[in-house]
Amino acid sequence: MKTGDQYRQSIVDGRSVYFEGEAIKDLNEHKVMNMAVDEIAKAYDRFYDPTPGAQNPLLGAPKGLEALRDRVYKLSESADVLTTTTYQSLATLTSAAPKVGETRPEYVERMYAFQDFVLKEDVRLTECITDAKGSRSSSPSKQIDKDVYVRVVERKSDGIIIQGAKLHITGAAFGHFLMVMPTKNMKDGEEDYAVACAVPVNAPGVKIINTTPAPRGDEIRHFPVSGRHVMPDGFVILDHVFVPYEHVFLDGEGAYAATFAHSLGLWERLGGTAFMADQADVLVGLAQLIAEANGTAGIAHVKEKISEMIIHATLIRGCLEAALAHSKETPDGFVFPDELYTNAAKYHGAANFNLMVRHLHDIGGGAIVTAPSIADLENSDIAPYVKKYMSTDGQNGEWRTRLFHGIRDLTADSYGGWHLVTNLQSGGGLYAQRLVTRKHYPMDHAKQLALKEIGLNAD
Amino acid sequence: MKTGDQYRQSIVDGRSVYFEGEAIKDLNEHKVMNMAVDEIAKAYDRFYDPTPGAQNPLLGAPKGLEALRDRVYKLSESADVLTTTTYQSLATLTSAAPKVGETRPEYVERMYAFQDFVLKEDVRLTECITDAKGSRSSSPSKQIDKDVYVRVVERKSDGIIIQGAKLHITGAAFGHFLMVMPTKNMKDGEEDYAVACAVPVNAPGVKIINTTPAPRGDEIRHFPVSGRHVMPDGFVILDHVFVPYEHVFLDGEGAYAATFAHSLGLWERLGGTAFMADQADVLVGLAQLIAEANGTAGIAHVKEKISEMIIHATLIRGCLEAALAHSKETPDGFVFPDELYTNAAKYHGAANFNLMVRHLHDIGGGAIVTAPSIADLENSDIAPYVKKYMSTDGQNGEWRTRLFHGIRDLTADSYGGWHLVTNLQSGGGLYAQRLVTRKHYPMDHAKQLALKEIGLNAD
Amino acid sequence: MKTGDQYRQSIVDGRSVYFEGEAIKDLNEHKVMNMAVDEIAKAYDRFYDPTPGAQNPLLGAPKGLEALRDRVYKLSESADVLTTTTYQSLATLTSAAPKVGETRPEYVERMYAFQDFVLKEDVRLTECITDAKGSRSSSPSKQIDKDVYVRVVERKSDGIIIQGAKLHITGAAFGHFLMVMPTKNMKDGEEDYAVACAVPVNAPGVKIINTTPAPRGDEIRHFPVSGRHVMPDGFVILDHVFVPYEHVFLDGEGAYAATFAHSLGLWERLGGTAFMADQADVLVGLAQLIAEANGTAGIAHVKEKISEMIIHATLIRGCLEAALAHSKETPDGFVFPDELYTNAAKYHGAANFNLMVRHLHDIGGGAIVTAPSIADLENSDIAPYVKKYMSTDGQNGEWRTRLFHGIRDLTADSYGGWHLVTNLQSGGGLYAQRLVTRKHYPMDHAKQLALKEIGLNAD
Amino acid sequence: MKTGDQYRQSIVDGRSVYFEGEAIKDLNEHKVMNMAVDEIAKAYDRFYDPTPGAQNPLLGAPKGLEALRDRVYKLSESADVLTTTTYQSLATLTSAAPKVGETRPEYVERMYAFQDFVLKEDVRLTECITDAKGSRSSSPSKQIDKDVYVRVVERKSDGIIIQGAKLHITGAAFGHFLMVMPTKNMKDGEEDYAVACAVPVNAPGVKIINTTPAPRGDEIRHFPVSGRHVMPDGFVILDHVFVPYEHVFLDGEGAYAATFAHSLGLWERLGGTAFMADQADVLVGLAQLIAEANGTAGIAHVKEKISEMIIHATLIRGCLEAALAHSKETPDGFVFPDELYTNAAKYHGAANFNLMVRHLHDIGGGAIVTAPSIADLENSDIAPYVKKYMSTDGQNGEWRTRLFHGIRDLTADSYGGWHLVTNLQSGGGLYAQRLVTRKHYPMDHAKQLALKEIGLNAD
Repeated sequence: MKTGDQYRQSIVDGRSVYFEGEAIKDLNEHKVMNMAVDEIAKAYDRFYDPTPGAQNPLLGAPKGLEALRDRVYKLSESADVLTTTTYQSLATLTSAAPKVGETRPEYVERMYAFQDFVLKEDVRLTECITDAKGSRSSSPSKQIDKDVYVRVVERKSDGIIIQGAKLHITGAAFGHFLMVMPTKNMKDGEEDYAVACAVPVNAPGVKIINTTPAPRGDEIRHFPVSGRHVMPDGFVILDHVFVPYEHVFLDGEGAYAATFAHSLGLWERLGGTAFMADQADVLVGLAQLIAEANGTAGIAHVKEKISEMIIHATLIRGCLEAALAHSKETPDGFVFPDELYTNAAKYHGAANFNLMVRHLHDIGGGAIVTAPSIADLENSDIAPYVKKYMSTDGQNGEWRTRLFHGIRDLTADSYGGWHLVTNLQSGGGLYAQRLVTRKHYPMDHAKQLALKEIGLNAD
Repeated sequence: MKTGDQYRQSIVDGRSVYFEGEAIKDLNEHKVMNMAVDEIAKAYDRFYDPTPGAQNPLLGAPKGLEALRDRVYKLSESADVLTTTTYQSLATLTSAAPKVGETRPEYVERMYAFQDFVLKEDVRLTECITDAKGSRSSSPSKQIDKDVYVRVVERKSDGIIIQGAKLHITGAAFGHFLMVMPTKNMKDGEEDYAVACAVPVNAPGVKIINTTPAPRGDEIRHFPVSGRHVMPDGFVILDHVFVPYEHVFLDGEGAYAATFAHSLGLWERLGGTAFMADQADVLVGLAQLIAEANGTAGIAHVKEKISEMIIHATLIRGCLEAALAHSKETPDGFVFPDELYTNAAKYHGAANFNLMVRHLHDIGGGAIVTAPSIADLENSDIAPYVKKYMSTDGQNGEWRTRLFHGIRDLTADSYGGWHLVTNLQSGGGLYAQRLVTRKHYPMDHAKQLALKEIGLNAD
Repeated sequence: MKTGDQYRQSIVDGRSVYFEGEAIKDLNEHKVMNMAVDEIAKAYDRFYDPTPGAQNPLLGAPKGLEALRDRVYKLSESADVLTTTTYQSLATLTSAAPKVGETRPEYVERMYAFQDFVLKEDVRLTECITDAKGSRSSSPSKQIDKDVYVRVVERKSDGIIIQGAKLHITGAAFGHFLMVMPTKNMKDGEEDYAVACAVPVNAPGVKIINTTPAPRGDEIRHFPVSGRHVMPDGFVILDHVFVPYEHVFLDGEGAYAATFAHSLGLWERLGGTAFMADQADVLVGLAQLIAEANGTAGIAHVKEKISEMIIHATLIRGCLEAALAHSKETPDGFVFPDELYTNAAKYHGAANFNLMVRHLHDIGGGAIVTAPSIADLENSDIAPYVKKYMSTDGQNGEWRTRLFHGIRDLTADSYGGWHLVTNLQSGGGLYAQRLVTRKHYPMDHAKQLALKEIGLNAD
Repeated sequence: MKTGDQYRQSIVDGRSVYFEGEAIKDLNEHKVMNMAVDEIAKAYDRFYDPTPGAQNPLLGAPKGLEALRDRVYKLSESADVLTTTTYQSLATLTSAAPKVGETRPEYVERMYAFQDFVLKEDVRLTECITDAKGSRSSSPSKQIDKDVYVRVVERKSDGIIIQGAKLHITGAAFGHFLMVMPTKNMKDGEEDYAVACAVPVNAPGVKIINTTPAPRGDEIRHFPVSGRHVMPDGFVILDHVFVPYEHVFLDGEGAYAATFAHSLGLWERLGGTAFMADQADVLVGLAQLIAEANGTAGIAHVKEKISEMIIHATLIRGCLEAALAHSKETPDGFVFPDELYTNAAKYHGAANFNLMVRHLHDIGGGAIVTAPSIADLENSDIAPYVKKYMSTDGQNGEWRTRLFHGIRDLTADSYGGWHLVTNLQSGGGLYAQRLVTRKHYPMDHAKQLALKEIGLNAD
């Protein structure tokens, strides 16, 4: 296993990474990027075990219902983002293997060998699904620019050469391998787009442009959440990148291309649901805390709004629990959460996050965005006034000020805006989540129930 | 155990029951009321077992998680309304017993003896909670008319005399005993209102006025659902009714008065949630069936609406499943569903039923209320035209007409209107369901999570 | 002009009308249908003016903004349904005339002559738009049964013969002429479906099947609204019906077929919006009345819900007022309401009616569906108890009971169910209303505003 | 009138203003604050007219309906924030004068004299309403810290001395006078809190702490909206500030204290509604633009979402138009918009802004927060890739990137977060807007309509 320091050194490997127009030599040294490095390094240290052969306990695919539930809750509690993306990538390989094996067994062998390598070397993977896509109304082979979906441009004796870009890749610049996967099944004539493989971040031809809602200015203390942990997203360019066959998990079988995306989708939505369940509890907690700090916790309409937030939080967690309780087990003992409950919960959480935020803002009041800063609390000309006038019942002016900062940072500033978008879009967007929910719903059963209820025979 | 016929005879016992201004001698003979009798009688026959000592398998309080889940689903599938109210009443006594026993142990003895009697005699109970209430802004002892909450007006050596009314009592006129319970805790000076007891339906002083959304006219075939099974509600008058002590389960202990209502509330909401989960599936099924019959099942906005209905149905069932999976077990092995998930699910189902109905009406179209009747299908002058013009793609005009009838009866006619109101109000109304959800939510945990997230210590 | 009695006689003209499988000789004599006749006759008497040449002041198309607003409010206040359908039909002819005149001027001459005839003879028209439609995914000419859209089956020297059916035709059996219009533009090869004409209700080949949410049983007093005024819908069969050319307003010009539907759509949605604005005020009023009667009008969550209802009612009326204030005037001085505001208001009212009803049911409580009947108030055994226990603060038990009856009849019984469906579907359904709103929205302006806001030039 | 330069000089007047812990000598020179100065200066230049006696045409209270509508639209088009706050402050004085004059006529004289001074000197006012408030559950005189509502602490022969703080004061540091007004009526014993007056920004004892969502880092081009115009909010401290009587408009008349807040509330909500109507159009425009850029403008669910946005935008504008069309005129010819429509529109806009944003994010996709920056478009190593992969159909990669930047800045970054909060809170928060709507609704009329509909006489 790697220590945090070993991780820090491992990413100074010649990778081409950028931020706001500049190439970054060493992510460890960059004023904005280093925050993400720190967080990943801390997670390495947290799970480090010097015993020979030790492995990170959060990474392998779980076996048995209890292990799955335990994993879901442990990841929420203590994992950094890259541990999660690595775990989801490995679980995806595990789920996809039986199906992919139908076409060419060597794919499965390579996938298992790669899994072992990842666990042994304690490296991190990021999930590269979304293509540039060009016009959404045309399929890959009908695009004017053929590269807008990642594709194989050459096949050599020892490997393939791929070209294209993958967008919105959380943490791409900070891991060791990019898990490149197609977004959907490919038709005849689109075989070159049916490619799944693992690509080292420092491979020649890989370039990653970072974007992030992390704070830019000097006053990082104004951002109690995003000043501590935000993972940049990567715009991943794959320009004529060579991939040796041992890291190629699919090449040309269009009918199997969606297998990876479907598997990853389930794990991503499960993770997203668990995240949103916690996030919903956090928003409820903040609403209650600020109502108490404002002296409004006993007012009827405030209580009603918090009750609505509670019900929302409970619905997400309830469906998450149902998804776990109805997990399916494979012959090998691996478990997968129920698709129907997972997707419905993910949809509901994503679709109503904005309403949760509205309630919090409604309860909190304008000081969410107008509370003076930490620096104002340190200027002796004005600090006494800030403390005095931010107080309720003669106490806690500073604490209440900091509570407002937390609410702003989480929900009404750059990081909050990032969540508004990513909660909706992660796991494929509202439309995709609806579609998948529908696909897994027992419609025939519902139709039979309906006919029985109205006393009619099937047509 | 009783057969259906024995049940029929058992309710011709001198009870004072009314409908639309007239006293009814024999419910078996009444044109509108007999439908409910038939349904109950059929359920008796369905579970009848001549073996000596046999008991109805759906009535006793379940032991163990699997038994609870099994019961919930069996009740949905095969029970009539009175089996459910009897089961919920008995489960309430079981849940309330430990707490009520704190005040006077003989209450518990009487409750258990009564339970045994009910199971042995195979009689039916109805749940009498809601009082007339007078002005909602005054407590029982502040009311101008002291009887608007049921109360003890006299205590004698062998029993008590009660007075008051219980409203919206499903099936009251059709059972054997009224399970009379207070709606809430009572304060000092309100001891007479803290009364729980079992009252035979034919006891002197009991009068029950029935109301029902069942069809009134001759053309009952126009109502494929409500023409077969609707349970009338009873307006139960208790005018100077004597109750022997063996049937008195609480008398005067105001601090314990709410115990019954809280216990019954949980079982009612669990039952209500299970009912709404099925109902939601039925509405999804009807939406899909009518979309197919209209030739619109492939149209994008129709699919979107059905997907929304599916997600709603799945959220209810998911929370129901979570409530069961997180059941609590008593030392005696009885199990209770989780309060938080049960209440959140009940609230969500009740609050969104109207939207489910809107989607169904939106998808179905105007013929839901304008489709010709069964009798029109039998008049040879017009039947060919009805079949012709109600057809899509040259077939099924009659079937589609009947599908519209079912949708109307369930959601856009008397019975549908009754559901709009009772789904909201059962288990205490939206406000009460919110309140109870809030009460059971782990708010301290949420506040701690929130503070941790924004890096703030507790105030 | 006609008196009420003259109207009554005028509809005993050999028309073929049906209800629940039976042919009706004289609508005046039919137990359920006579209620609609009475209401129309009363409206005739209300506006009757014996002056020679007098005309009903609510019928002709209005000139000038003030006349339009005045008309909208007068129709709401005092018109019966058939006056409204006649007015909308005539306004449709007026709006459609300029466009239809582009193809054949004689159409316009016939339309004006017919208008004059209608005003002079004081007859009533009903709006026949919706076809049987068969499968919604096929166009008229692709249907298996060619008659599922009304079409011309023969052209003779003196007129045309049409065939088909029109569905959901409010009041069809009670007017004098059916205004038959196509639902949409027709393509090449669908010329026979491009037919608009006026057909006497008693023309050979016309058969009308009535459906209605009016009460069926004897106890009509239980239905304080629908027992007084409900207009049946007609399923109109046109079997080989001859129409002389003077009553043919379009025959074969597919590109003009939608003109009538678009014009009527605007007038129908304006009327629907005005109706829903009043209806929303009625629901607010009922919510306030029942809250006061229950003693809950001062409770915070009840006030919040009523405030939400008020805002909803105000939004509809505000947009209605905007639609009137932004009316467009033709060179001839006729005025048309603004399409954008009319459609947005209609959509919003239709989409949220179910939420208004939910709030009312939430506030009112279970007695909406369980309040005893008027007959119960007349039975001396039980009436004293009903009055006593339906009272709040010692008074008004009967009044409160009747208030519940009104709420039930309007929103939780047959008539309420009919409104749930027809509010959604009138004027073309939610989807159509959205579509038309979008069509009339100044999208280019919005795009320019957007680009200006973000400082970007047009692409 | 003042030129922009004269304005710039006028605010270098010794005022005590702060930002992030530092005192600012000259706002013109401050890296973040200067943006607001620039915008105000530009607006001065735009309306500058050297004619002697000329006045800014947007400032005085409008006379007549057309003038009011004209003003509303002109302010939206061309005013900076301080012109709006000055106009609203003056309109408030005009509206409040008749009522305030009832108590002491000299108040009105002072108010008119001050108005003339403002117009002549072309100075700017900001609206200081919201107090620090302490605990929301206690009234001013019950607070532990007596200063949490602004109050008179001393009365001298030539003026008064006030103490307290005003929060969330838009542009406070950039105007010339603070219009200090109470938030509500005051009770007996709270006379010292009933104080309205005008205070120069540079008066001794005034200190203003600025907060702002304006961009902090160097890369201001990443913020195409907030990098150009954002008005900081002021936390205004009034520490023993002397106000001469000529600028005191109320002092001690508790029953009149709310007059100013009610008047200002109406003008603020009218302004807020007009702003939100434009903002809604901007969001619709952005949704359509990004859908077109993504190649999804023809997809059914995208069209549906844009149609919903259109309906929302139309409802706000419709009610705004109704508020204008139903303006009330005073005997002096001043006009006030209708309270009912204004408040309902403001509420609806505020309550649904989050849903508008959700639809935009749903349609736009993840690139809203992950699109590379302008600087990335200038780095030749990566710019070609960014342009290539941000393109759809082979063109416009840079334009689409900039479109995403605009959407992010407006709705998913600091400035967007600020809007989420301030749209809700401006004009008093959702609860206050509901309350005021309810207050102005004709409830008696609604109750009469309801009773008439159900055929019941008033109780």
